[in-house]
Amino acid sequence: MTTVRAYRRLSVEERRAQLLDAALSLFAHRAPEEVSLDDVAEAAGVSRPLVYRYFPGGKQQLYEAALRSAAELLEQCFAEPQAGPLTQRLSRALDRYLAFVDEHDAGFSALLQGGSVVETSRTTATVDGIRRAAAQQILYHLAVPAPGPRLRMMVRTWITAVEAASLIWIDEGKQPEVSALRDWLVDQFIALLTATAATDPETAAAARAALALESADGPVGVLARRVIPVVSEAAHLL
Amino acid sequence: MTTVRAYRRLSVEERRAQLLDAALSLFAHRAPEEVSLDDVAEAAGVSRPLVYRYFPGGKQQLYEAALRSAAELLEQCFAEPQAGPLTQRLSRALDRYLAFVDEHDAGFSALLQGGSVVETSRTTATVDGIRRAAAQQILYHLAVPAPGPRLRMMVRTWITAVEAASLIWIDEGKQPEVSALRDWLVDQFIALLTATAATDPETAAAARAALALESADGPVGVLARRVIPVVSEAAHLL
Repeated sequence: MTTVRAYRRLSVEERRAQLLDAALSLFAHRAPEEVSLDDVAEAAGVSRPLVYRYFPGGKQQLYEAALRSAAELLEQCFAEPQAGPLTQRLSRALDRYLAFVDEHDAGFSALLQGGSVVETSRTTATVDGIRRAAAQQILYHLAVPAPGPRLRMMVRTWITAVEAASLIWIDEGKQPEVSALRDWLVDQFIALLTATAATDPETAAAARAALALESADGPVGVLARRVIPVVSEAAHLL
Repeated sequence: MTTVRAYRRLSVEERRAQLLDAALSLFAHRAPEEVSLDDVAEAAGVSRPLVYRYFPGGKQQLYEAALRSAAELLEQCFAEPQAGPLTQRLSRALDRYLAFVDEHDAGFSALLQGGSVVETSRTTATVDGIRRAAAQQILYHLAVPAPGPRLRMMVRTWITAVEAASLIWIDEGKQPEVSALRDWLVDQFIALLTATAATDPETAAAARAALALESADGPVGVLARRVIPVVSEAAHLL
């Protein structure tokens, strides 16, 4: 009864959003193969023909629309004011990103692991759009106006590492704790930035500027003090 | 005429290998969508029905078989004697891997970028098998008998970074030079190993053992001397 009343009351846009919400929740926790249009209709409390009226392309169209709405949510995770130490900004963005991954675990894995029946050049383009948005945000925070190829490549490889670590994390029953994963990914960023600074002057300038904003009790200070005992035995290299 | 004689002379196994070679060469330089069975027949100098006799599943079966033979070639790239500094072993394996990527550029990109019509759970499993083989080789060279989750995660994220960097490298017209890409990927490995050593005792032990084998004029010595000027300005962190 309540469903029928809701059906009458919603505008076209509201109805579409409601169907997308229901689809996204289902696609978040199951592989696309395991979600049917009947499931979506049931979750939204509507009939299957109504789902088809809004999404005449059926499951494929619904999946792609749900993916685009997930992409918008994800891109909002990366928005962060350009103030304070870089590692604080990265940590906050990673907290939001990893909460999204946690919330959409099965769908995230299915989407990124490939070989899915709903994967097309359009879904690939949506995922690439998310990666590009993430890379642009990071370059914006590194305050490099026209980043060269090496720095862009470094940022893109780190983003891939974050994706890979997220997939492994889901696969291993969400171990270690999300805060430990976040801290390790921040450490990886600092390590990659520093290693790339060794051979790329632009990255070196960005690394110097970023390190100047860090504090001794922040992630870089802690990392530096923990790394020194490991590398100090290798004085023969200097 | 020569084709007909060759056709009569080859054994079933030889013919199959010849068709696979022809298919792999085609799939290496074009997206799977752009390769037809006629192309394979023409490249091998045989008729289309003959290709179907060996691969009744058509292009999909041929693609999967070519991918498996490529996977065997790739896994051989990782084989490396367990002697000398770790960075030397990594460099040699990367040289072979990057030569393979260079040789199979379009096919490599199409396979890893997803959304291809020939991508299935079987092709995904083949690619995952290559990643697993690469990870096992690296852990073998790190000489850790029963590696824990953090070290395994670090190795797997580095492998993903190598894949991502290879794709970007192809995409950017194979810039920088392959030796610069290789050296940078080795630097990344050292950076990730060291950063992970900060929070994982097992990785710290592996890093100490690896650094002890490095020399001052090797990659780690060069990296260390280049990184010091960048980080020395950040003495406030210690």
